[in-house]
Amino acid sequence: MRNIQIGLLGFGTVGSGVAAILKNNLYDIDTRSHASISIKKALVRNLLKERSYSEGIYITDSPSEILEDPDIDIVVEVIGGIEPARSYMISALEHGKNVVTANKDLLAVHGEELLNVAQRNGSDLFFEASVGGGIPIISAIRQSLTANQVSSVIGIINGTTNYILSAMTEQGRDFSNVLQEAQELGYAEADPTADIEGLDAARKLAILSTLAFNTSVTFNDVFVEGISKISPADIQYASELDCVIKLLAIAKNQGDGIEIRVHPALLPKKHPLAAVNGVYNAVYVVGDAAGETMFYGKGAGSLPTGSAVVSDIIQVVRNMESKSTGLIGYGCYRNAPIKTTDSFTTGYYIRLKVKDEPRVFATLALFFAEAGISFSSIIQKPRPENNAEIVLVTHPCTERQLRQALDSLNSYSKLDKIYNVIRLETNSI
Amino acid sequence: MRNIQIGLLGFGTVGSGVAAILKNNLYDIDTRSHASISIKKALVRNLLKERSYSEGIYITDSPSEILEDPDIDIVVEVIGGIEPARSYMISALEHGKNVVTANKDLLAVHGEELLNVAQRNGSDLFFEASVGGGIPIISAIRQSLTANQVSSVIGIINGTTNYILSAMTEQGRDFSNVLQEAQELGYAEADPTADIEGLDAARKLAILSTLAFNTSVTFNDVFVEGISKISPADIQYASELDCVIKLLAIAKNQGDGIEIRVHPALLPKKHPLAAVNGVYNAVYVVGDAAGETMFYGKGAGSLPTGSAVVSDIIQVVRNMESKSTGLIGYGCYRNAPIKTTDSFTTGYYIRLKVKDEPRVFATLALFFAEAGISFSSIIQKPRPENNAEIVLVTHPCTERQLRQALDSLNSYSKLDKIYNVIRLETNSI
Repeated sequence: MRNIQIGLLGFGTVGSGVAAILKNNLYDIDTRSHASISIKKALVRNLLKERSYSEGIYITDSPSEILEDPDIDIVVEVIGGIEPARSYMISALEHGKNVVTANKDLLAVHGEELLNVAQRNGSDLFFEASVGGGIPIISAIRQSLTANQVSSVIGIINGTTNYILSAMTEQGRDFSNVLQEAQELGYAEADPTADIEGLDAARKLAILSTLAFNTSVTFNDVFVEGISKISPADIQYASELDCVIKLLAIAKNQGDGIEIRVHPALLPKKHPLAAVNGVYNAVYVVGDAAGETMFYGKGAGSLPTGSAVVSDIIQVVRNMESKSTGLIGYGCYRNAPIKTTDSFTTGYYIRLKVKDEPRVFATLALFFAEAGISFSSIIQKPRPENNAEIVLVTHPCTERQLRQALDSLNSYSKLDKIYNVIRLETNSI
Repeated sequence: MRNIQIGLLGFGTVGSGVAAILKNNLYDIDTRSHASISIKKALVRNLLKERSYSEGIYITDSPSEILEDPDIDIVVEVIGGIEPARSYMISALEHGKNVVTANKDLLAVHGEELLNVAQRNGSDLFFEASVGGGIPIISAIRQSLTANQVSSVIGIINGTTNYILSAMTEQGRDFSNVLQEAQELGYAEADPTADIEGLDAARKLAILSTLAFNTSVTFNDVFVEGISKISPADIQYASELDCVIKLLAIAKNQGDGIEIRVHPALLPKKHPLAAVNGVYNAVYVVGDAAGETMFYGKGAGSLPTGSAVVSDIIQVVRNMESKSTGLIGYGCYRNAPIKTTDSFTTGYYIRLKVKDEPRVFATLALFFAEAGISFSSIIQKPRPENNAEIVLVTHPCTERQLRQALDSLNSYSKLDKIYNVIRLETNSI
C-alpha cells in the first residue's frame, strides 16, 4: 500500500478530531483509501502544550517545515481565519500538495481565488468541513444533485443560535439568559458576535450559494440580520401561528437573480427544518428534479467536523491513486445577478402596540393597503391598559413595500411602539 | 467537448424522467460534466407506444442494438427485476460500457457479482437511484461518511407504507381503507405485496447494509415483517406513549454481529425520523465520528429517481474524463456475522385483552419476570365489559426472551387475546 503523509496546520479542536479519527479508524480508513495514511507533522503556536493523539507526530511552529516538505502529500488546514491560513494554503497548493480545509471564513471571501490556484496546480482543494460539520452537504450539492437546477437552499447552519432559539422556545426564557448559559456550556464563545449576529451562517451560505447556483457569491453579498432582538413573546405568537422562529440562511433563485440572506424567520412547524433543534444543523435543498431534500446532522464539534475532513482526505487519496486530482472547481459558469434587499420578497410578522381607540386599526390597515400589502393573519389580544398589542402577518411583499408601510406607521400618533419585524419563510413545504 | 452517448434499457417511469432531465437541464449537465451527453438509443418492449422526450432517440426492441453498439459509453438500466436486467447488465459491462442502474431487486441479490464484473472490466457501476429515489444516500455512505465506523442505519425507505401509516395516524383510518385509497392515487400497486410486506424496503436495506458495514448482505439475510396488522388502536396507544409507528429498515452493528431487519416499530416522536411523513423517505445514519446524520427527500417518482440516475451519469462522465472508472467497489472487506432473529434485542409493545379479575395482572407480570423482561410503561384503561385491554411496553430484551413470555401468556386461561406485538426503536435519539 502506498504511504500518504499529512501535514496538519493547527492542532486545536478540529485538528485533534482529525488525529483521533485517523488513529481510531485506521484499518477502515486505510482499506477504503487503498493507502496507509498518517499525520507526519503538525503546526502549532505553542510547542509546549500537551496534546492527545499527538504520538508519532512531529510538532513544529515553523510553517515551512510542512509546506516545503516534499514527503507531505496532503495539507489539512484547520487554523481558521483569513491570514495566515490563506498564505499557507496558497503555498501548499503551489508546492503541489492537495489541501483539505474546514475554513469557512477564508472560503467565503477568497474561495474562487483558492480554487483557481488549486486547479492551476492540478491539486484538490476540498472543504466539506467548512459548512455543516459532519453533514456532507458540500458533496451533496457538488456531486450528488448535479442533475438539478437548484431553486433554493435553506439552512440552519449555526449551532449556537439554534441552541439559543430552541432553548427559548422550549423553556420560554429570554435571549440574554440563554446566551449566558450557552457560553457557560461552551456552545457560545466569549465574544458571541459572529454567531448571534448571523455572520458565521452568512459565510457558510456564501459557500453553499456559490456551489448551488454556479455563481461566485462572497460574504459581502449576503444580507445579514442576527437573533438578539427575538423575544419570548415573538416565539409565543409564532407558535400560535403554527410556526417556530429559526435563524435561517436562505438562498433562492428567483429567475431574475438570486436572493441571499441570513435572518431570523417564522417557519411553519410542518416544514422539515422546523424540527431541527439544539446544536443540530440541517440544510434543505430544492432541485427541479430531486424535489425537496434535507441533510441533517451535527454542525460542529471535534469529531463531526473531523469526520468531514477525514472523508475528504480519503477522497483526495482515491483521486491521487487515479491521478485525477484538481478536476473539480467551484464551477462559477453562470454568474447570476445577486438581488438587492429592496426587492427581497417575503411575508412579514409585525408586532406592535397602538392606542386602543376607535378607527386605529382601520388606519393601520390603510397604511398597509396603500403600500399594496395584504394580511394573512392578525392577532389582537385584550390588554389591561388603554392600548392594544397587535400582531400582523402579511402576504409576501417586497422590502420596499414594507418600508413604505412602516414609514407611515412610524409617523402615526396612535402608534406606541413597533416591537419587532420578522420575516416569514413559507415557501415549498 | 467530448460526446457521450447513452443507451437506455427501459423507457417507463424512470426512463422518461432521465430523458426529461437530460433535455431540460442540458446546459447545466453538459457544463458540469465537461461533455455533450445524449441518449442515442432506448430499448422498449412496445415499439408503437407514444413516449414524451423520445425525440432524437432511436427506439428498439433488440437489446443487442444497445449492448453491442461501440458508440454507446454508458448503459442506463431502468427495466427493474432480476432477468433479463442481470444478463443485459453483465453484457454491457463486458462490452466495456459503464452502467448506471436503479435496480434494487437485482442489486439486493446479485450486487457483489455485478460489482465484480464491473471492476474486472474497469467500468463504473453506479446505483444511487436504487435506494431512496432522489436522496443521495448511497454516495453519502460510500463517499461522504468514509471516515466513520457506522453503528446504525435506520431508514424509512418505502413510500407506500409510509403514506399508509401517515394517513392512518393523521386521520385515524384503518389499514385496508387507506391501502385502497393509495392504490387509487397510484401510491400503491395493484399487487401491493412487495411494499406492504416490507420486501421492497428489505431489498434497499440489503444494499445500504452492505455499504455501511462492508459486509455482503443480500435480500435473504434480512428479517422482514409488514404493516398489515397495524390497527388505528395501536397507533393511538403509540401516540399516548409519545411515539409514532413507522415501517423501519434497521441495520445495526452490535459488535458481535449485525442485525438487519425490516418491521413496523414504535419510534419516539422526538426522533428525527418521526416527522418523515407521506411519500417522503429518509435514512438516519449514525457514525462514530459524524454522530447522528439524516438524509431526507422523495423516495420515488420519475424525476426524483431520474435525478439520482443523471447525477450518477455525470459522475461516470467525470470518471471517464480522468480515466478513473471502475475504482469503487462494494468494499466487502469485513464480513461481519449476521445475527439471527433469536438474538435481536429490542423493546416490545404488547397489546392484549385479559379477564378483569383479581390476580390476573400479577400473573401476567410474573410471566414476563420469569423471562427476565421488565416493563418501561403500562397502560390499562377501564372497559365496559368484564375484561381489560392492557398495553405492556418492555425494556429491551431478546426475541428469545419475548417468545418465552408469550408462550406462557398463550397458555394462560385468563388471556382473551393478544392483539399485536410491535417492536420499539428507542436507540440514539
